[in-house]
Amino acid sequence: MTVFDELMEMNNAYVEEFASQGLSHLPARALSVLTCMDARLHPEAALGIRLGDAHVIRNAGGRASDDAIRSLVVSQRMLGTREILLLHHTDCGMSSFTNVELAAKIETDLGVDVGEYDFLPFTDPAEGLRQDVETLVFSPLVAGGTLIIGAMYDVTTGTVSEVLRRTA
Amino acid sequence: MTVFDELMEMNNAYVEEFASQGLSHLPARALSVLTCMDARLHPEAALGIRLGDAHVIRNAGGRASDDAIRSLVVSQRMLGTREILLLHHTDCGMSSFTNVELAAKIETDLGVDVGEYDFLPFTDPAEGLRQDVETLVFSPLVAGGTLIIGAMYDVTTGTVSEVLRRTA
Repeated sequence: MTVFDELMEMNNAYVEEFASQGLSHLPARALSVLTCMDARLHPEAALGIRLGDAHVIRNAGGRASDDAIRSLVVSQRMLGTREILLLHHTDCGMSSFTNVELAAKIETDLGVDVGEYDFLPFTDPAEGLRQDVETLVFSPLVAGGTLIIGAMYDVTTGTVSEVLRRTA
Repeated sequence: MTVFDELMEMNNAYVEEFASQGLSHLPARALSVLTCMDARLHPEAALGIRLGDAHVIRNAGGRASDDAIRSLVVSQRMLGTREILLLHHTDCGMSSFTNVELAAKIETDLGVDVGEYDFLPFTDPAEGLRQDVETLVFSPLVAGGTLIIGAMYDVTTGTVSEVLRRTA
């Protein structure tokens, strides 16, 4: 049995209790959350986000990558969101390696030379959060007037703490 | 009061009940889920994924973008995941516009000419899912032997249905 087969059993129970028919495809709270893929963070649960409330965009590190900005553009222009929460977290794996180290591991494990690939690690988590907020603030693709809040999630306590807020 | 301020109140309640200290940063079920940012989909709830179980990567459309593959490489090489669930959903906003239409809207709304930017929309959801599974299967950065399952989530019922499975 694969992990997926186990998840399908859980989904059967979810469907039995499902009572959220008829939600709009426009997020009810006009919010986008950009955060990390980390397994110890369930953003909807940690923030009380209900089904239909908010877009949730996740990648390694919760970085303001070009693809995250692609998603935010779709979210804002096509689906009406107006506020962005950028949520990083403590003990992030993205500060445990350098591009050179991961490239070397890929060459060893997979036999692939990725060259100068930027995996978007960061050395200082606080600085990484600030940089990503600034990237969003100054992106011409993020609507002027968008409130952007940078916050940290503590994986040992579940606590979300605001670090900075800016307006695009 | 911003939406974020409301979420912080919800987070206080979450912290009171938090009892998941000491989780490993390595996902317990060695699973990565790649899915859409859609507000009507809460992947952890729909699939019974517990805190610490799985990486969750989300973008507009749940596309196998370069940035999603960056995240999957970190997930597999640095954090030990071995199975990938690619989960698209019904009524996806990514099939409601073309690149030309969104570029025109950005020019009108934001005064920015994005040129030939590919926002990764799809015309046929079933074909989009199949394409993204194939992209992962043939990516040299996804480990050989990885099980990749393509599935659809029905936003009106909460049901997850397997569509195809391949091995990288």
